[in-house]
Amino acid sequence: MLEPVNGSSVDTGNADEPAAPIVDGGLVRVRLDIGYDGTDFSGWARQPGRRTVQQVLEAALETVLRQRVALTVAGRTDAGVHATGQVAHADLPSTGLMLEPASGSSVDTAELGHRLRRLLPPDVTVYGVRAVPAAFDARFAALRRHYEYRVADRPLASGPLRRRDTASWHRPLDERLMAQAAAPLLGEHDFAAFCRRRQGATTVRELQRLDWRRDPDGMLACLVSADAFCHNMVRGLVGALIAVGDGRCPPAWPATLLAARQRSSKVTVAPAHGLTLVGVDYPPDEELAARATVTRAVRGS
Amino acid sequence: MLEPVNGSSVDTGNADEPAAPIVDGGLVRVRLDIGYDGTDFSGWARQPGRRTVQQVLEAALETVLRQRVALTVAGRTDAGVHATGQVAHADLPSTGLMLEPASGSSVDTAELGHRLRRLLPPDVTVYGVRAVPAAFDARFAALRRHYEYRVADRPLASGPLRRRDTASWHRPLDERLMAQAAAPLLGEHDFAAFCRRRQGATTVRELQRLDWRRDPDGMLACLVSADAFCHNMVRGLVGALIAVGDGRCPPAWPATLLAARQRSSKVTVAPAHGLTLVGVDYPPDEELAARATVTRAVRGS
Repeated sequence: MLEPVNGSSVDTGNADEPAAPIVDGGLVRVRLDIGYDGTDFSGWARQPGRRTVQQVLEAALETVLRQRVALTVAGRTDAGVHATGQVAHADLPSTGLMLEPASGSSVDTAELGHRLRRLLPPDVTVYGVRAVPAAFDARFAALRRHYEYRVADRPLASGPLRRRDTASWHRPLDERLMAQAAAPLLGEHDFAAFCRRRQGATTVRELQRLDWRRDPDGMLACLVSADAFCHNMVRGLVGALIAVGDGRCPPAWPATLLAARQRSSKVTVAPAHGLTLVGVDYPPDEELAARATVTRAVRGS
Repeated sequence: MLEPVNGSSVDTGNADEPAAPIVDGGLVRVRLDIGYDGTDFSGWARQPGRRTVQQVLEAALETVLRQRVALTVAGRTDAGVHATGQVAHADLPSTGLMLEPASGSSVDTAELGHRLRRLLPPDVTVYGVRAVPAAFDARFAALRRHYEYRVADRPLASGPLRRRDTASWHRPLDERLMAQAAAPLLGEHDFAAFCRRRQGATTVRELQRLDWRRDPDGMLACLVSADAFCHNMVRGLVGALIAVGDGRCPPAWPATLLAARQRSSKVTVAPAHGLTLVGVDYPPDEELAARATVTRAVRGS
């Protein structure tokens, strides 16, 4: 339960109160933590005539709030890609949040989350909804995104129960060779070799993590973190490392590709269904605005 | 690749050779290791007009071998229950296994597994096929079965990607209380309180494990092992422990139920989709026949 909102600033002198959630004109900015099984979605972003996560979530919000609301997301995932830690924000009319008319003044994000969960289909959920400062921008205030790519190179590691979020590889993968190939890719580089280019957008990114983990059941997971990713970047990196892991290419090959700084036809993008967005990091509230300003300057809006 | 089979006994004096796989009349007994997503199956056992795992597997075997083959299974799972470690056996005509007509004498179980995997739908797979001694009986030679029951009592622990094999609980579960309640159930008892009775069948079983594990992601799993389970037993046990975990019943309650030795209407059977058969143990080859004899005597055929 949040304090009444009425378009003016809220006194947050009390340390127990959240920072003022007012955007303007009585709008309240909320953060939604989202999970989905991407199998039956044409990705995150709205597309005419397609079932997308954004369209399904915005439709549910419209049903609850009786008014159209637009979501801004941290990671615009492709068709078939999953999420356990997706984050979006929306500016909601505070009147629409007065879900308990009797009290007349309460803004109940827990109730909003509960109503959304009941409306949403089984392959998407909202883990939580909470009011955030107006400077919280799910896309531009993010410090880094974390992805996990699951691949089974042994029959027993995958199996029918994980077929939706685990790619299969028909040859054994050597995770030590893949770790060796991954090391020189870390840090700030132009990742154009691994990305599908977008007009006017930079492909310089800071790759902060690119580790392989072998689980007790034999399943392999690639843990990938960066400040942000350009289009197809995680799947391009994983595809290049798999070519090393199964012995087709030497460990030095991905670094050679990187140095060429242009899209290579030799990179086979790994299948979408192995990929899951597992988390997004944000700075503390007082640093949100500064972070968004820096990001916008670097990557453009 | 196995040695030629021709209806007579095979010399297994060489320690590298498998034990004689001949049942009789040229039949070869094979073991199949099986996994399935039970969501869209009406359980294991054949039922007229229903899609069951047995029916789908036997149809695939018939396609490959051009002859009907019956499977005997370790655990006849109910509708909606999954398996990562199911085991079945079948007696195959050795002629049907001559998958390489050119050689004329080879029995290739690896090739049989490969062909089955290509034929089977995505929600069931055969991890491996291998020839076993005639005394191997998937049902009666089994020493114990291992099940895992997954339940999410926090929104973030489940999510759309695991909705098929994880039950949700709307209240927090205290795994220490559940462990306390589980302890007196271990050992050999009449589990009639937790089972759906079958005419003429004993409900005495040896419960060897009933542990709860809390995973790093918050998910709870109940690990249950016994020599064998009667119908609904795992789900009845888990249902009773959940009633303790969420505070509805005291920790001593499940043991009180057990002592009553009759089906209790107070036991809420936990939902099928949280349950997975994860493994079956068998004795070494030389003890297979003795084990099957003991099991048949206790539980009837």
